[in-house]
Amino acid sequence: MEFCTFKHTARIEVRYAETDQMGIVHHSVYAVWFEQARTEFFREAGASYAQMEAEGFSSPVLELNVQYKSPTHYGDFVDIETTMEKVDRLRVRFHYKAFVDGKLCTTGTTLHCMLKNGRPSRDLPESFNKFEFVKE
Amino acid sequence: MEFCTFKHTARIEVRYAETDQMGIVHHSVYAVWFEQARTEFFREAGASYAQMEAEGFSSPVLELNVQYKSPTHYGDFVDIETTMEKVDRLRVRFHYKAFVDGKLCTTGTTLHCMLKNGRPSRDLPESFNKFEFVKE
Amino acid sequence: MEFCTFKHTARIEVRYAETDQMGIVHHSVYAVWFEQARTEFFREAGASYAQMEAEGFSSPVLELNVQYKSPTHYGDFVDIETTMEKVDRLRVRFHYKAFVDGKLCTTGTTLHCMLKNGRPSRDLPESFNKFEFVKE
Amino acid sequence: MEFCTFKHTARIEVRYAETDQMGIVHHSVYAVWFEQARTEFFREAGASYAQMEAEGFSSPVLELNVQYKSPTHYGDFVDIETTMEKVDRLRVRFHYKAFVDGKLCTTGTTLHCMLKNGRPSRDLPESFNKFEFVKE
Repeated sequence: MEFCTFKHTARIEVRYAETDQMGIVHHSVYAVWFEQARTEFFREAGASYAQMEAEGFSSPVLELNVQYKSPTHYGDFVDIETTMEKVDRLRVRFHYKAFVDGKLCTTGTTLHCMLKNGRPSRDLPESFNKFEFVKE
Repeated sequence: MEFCTFKHTARIEVRYAETDQMGIVHHSVYAVWFEQARTEFFREAGASYAQMEAEGFSSPVLELNVQYKSPTHYGDFVDIETTMEKVDRLRVRFHYKAFVDGKLCTTGTTLHCMLKNGRPSRDLPESFNKFEFVKE
Repeated sequence: MEFCTFKHTARIEVRYAETDQMGIVHHSVYAVWFEQARTEFFREAGASYAQMEAEGFSSPVLELNVQYKSPTHYGDFVDIETTMEKVDRLRVRFHYKAFVDGKLCTTGTTLHCMLKNGRPSRDLPESFNKFEFVKE
Repeated sequence: MEFCTFKHTARIEVRYAETDQMGIVHHSVYAVWFEQARTEFFREAGASYAQMEAEGFSSPVLELNVQYKSPTHYGDFVDIETTMEKVDRLRVRFHYKAFVDGKLCTTGTTLHCMLKNGRPSRDLPESFNKFEFVKE
């Protein structure tokens, strides 16, 4: 597998609205956090996703996988470590690990294709040139 | 005040994800339910909001007011009674009453303007001709 | 694999709030719809999940997997076909297929354990006796 | 009106999932942001809301009012200025102003009562003693 040499950890505070009546963060929320972690991943790498969209690119999610190991709670700060894998010329997969106080709570992946003006594109956004990939 | 003669009651089942750790529906959810009640209001009157958007109209929310009288819970079916008030040529206000088993739980209003292609418009969607208004 | 003989199809109308700026339903929403489909699955089988919680049972999600084949839109009615697989004495997996106008849009699964008063339990809720399982 | 001498500004980054197909942040999201701003207001004042809940207090929302002046977008950082008004011995009202790049986008208020173990309480959480109020 080819992984990007850049990694990022986003810190997200649990919002009250994200809890459910079990007293824990609802399982659907992690997909929203992962997306926020991707936004920060791009920005920290100097490659704004908002700008990529303005250039006609979009990167819809093809697959989502989440493994819930232990719950997170209102009051927690969740650290989400994000890495990017190049699957092939048309697809990338992001890998996420969510920690609270250093304890791994949740892992997940999202698989994305790259569209330009709504069509599959081998033509990557210019800012992707910033990323280097290495075999792992 | 001029009210539309058409009224509609939408039935919405509380979703687990809509609860919070107080064990009740989170207060932000009612705005989503009110919007779903508006969607049904238009459809039942024969005036699809999706079609209005396709014709270039949009109807953004200018103000939202909600009064929470008693909470709603997972397992509840919530009946939302919706009426439309004509405020002036450019603005309409929707009024909502949410009931569970006939008991009034929540009331609210949303104020909207009408935009055509992103600009304020006195030109209403054709389907609005279906609505009659009476002074109350 | 052992599958429950009971199946259910839930019809869900896309809410405006569920769309994102790509003009499609946001990918995190499907987990919420799947949960609503489970709620209906239990109710239609005569086994209320709200009552199961009242008896001290809960059924947290251990894993979520979603495959997005084609997007859904505001204005769509989404039919979610739900089946339940018995994985072992402690875990069940739900399988979902989401259709719009008969076209398969999204598939997914959720893996659950059964807790009684917060601890893993082999003791199933009484209403689970209603379910029959067959090898497939 | 009696206002708390403490004020706080929370910075919130717009999440992609918070946009809708109009390409702007959905109007229901502001209630979630306001709540996050309250959480930070309490924490910065040394009065954790999570701890208040652990002591048996809760502070449900009785009323929500939002005025939308201009939309916010994915890519924006929203600064929410929060102040607390003492309405009477049983109720407080929070006032919010949301800015993007110094431009006022949205204003709002939430009215809250204070419950102890689910009943109206004149008995405020100990951490409330930290707050001073002045007539304005």
